[in-house]
Amino acid sequence: MKVRVHVMLKDGVLDPQGEAVRHALGALGFDGVGSVRQGKVIEMDLADGTSEDKIGEMCEKLLANTVIESYRIETL
Amino acid sequence: MKVRVHVMLKDGVLDPQGEAVRHALGALGFDGVGSVRQGKVIEMDLADGTSEDKIGEMCEKLLANTVIESYRIETL
Repeated sequence: MKVRVHVMLKDGVLDPQGEAVRHALGALGFDGVGSVRQGKVIEMDLADGTSEDKIGEMCEKLLANTVIESYRIETL
Repeated sequence: MKVRVHVMLKDGVLDPQGEAVRHALGALGFDGVGSVRQGKVIEMDLADGTSEDKIGEMCEKLLANTVIESYRIETL
């Protein structure tokens, strides 16, 4: 089974990467760019039948820093 | 309007980050993890009516390195 995990910084956590992208887009002449947040996405091939709980455990233990990041699991 | 851009390394391009995640999951005792690919996701607030062409231009010029990365635009 294929799974996609989205990891984003929580609201209120400063996102310097996103800010850099916003500035760079402005400098390139793209107008109307409001807030920009950058996160990561991890696509994994897992054994069929891997439970969502197990995937949540992977996120909690390794993929996301739950102090500052939130994650979302999407099964493809 | 809210837009999400997914940027992933193209197939065939070595993904050391993904490999590191795969190894780490194995070391943590998670079995059955096949290939892992890591990419980035950029969420942007754009002016209403920004065309998909314009967003594509942002990707080509800044957000993705199209030599090794592919991108996908998702309007929310």
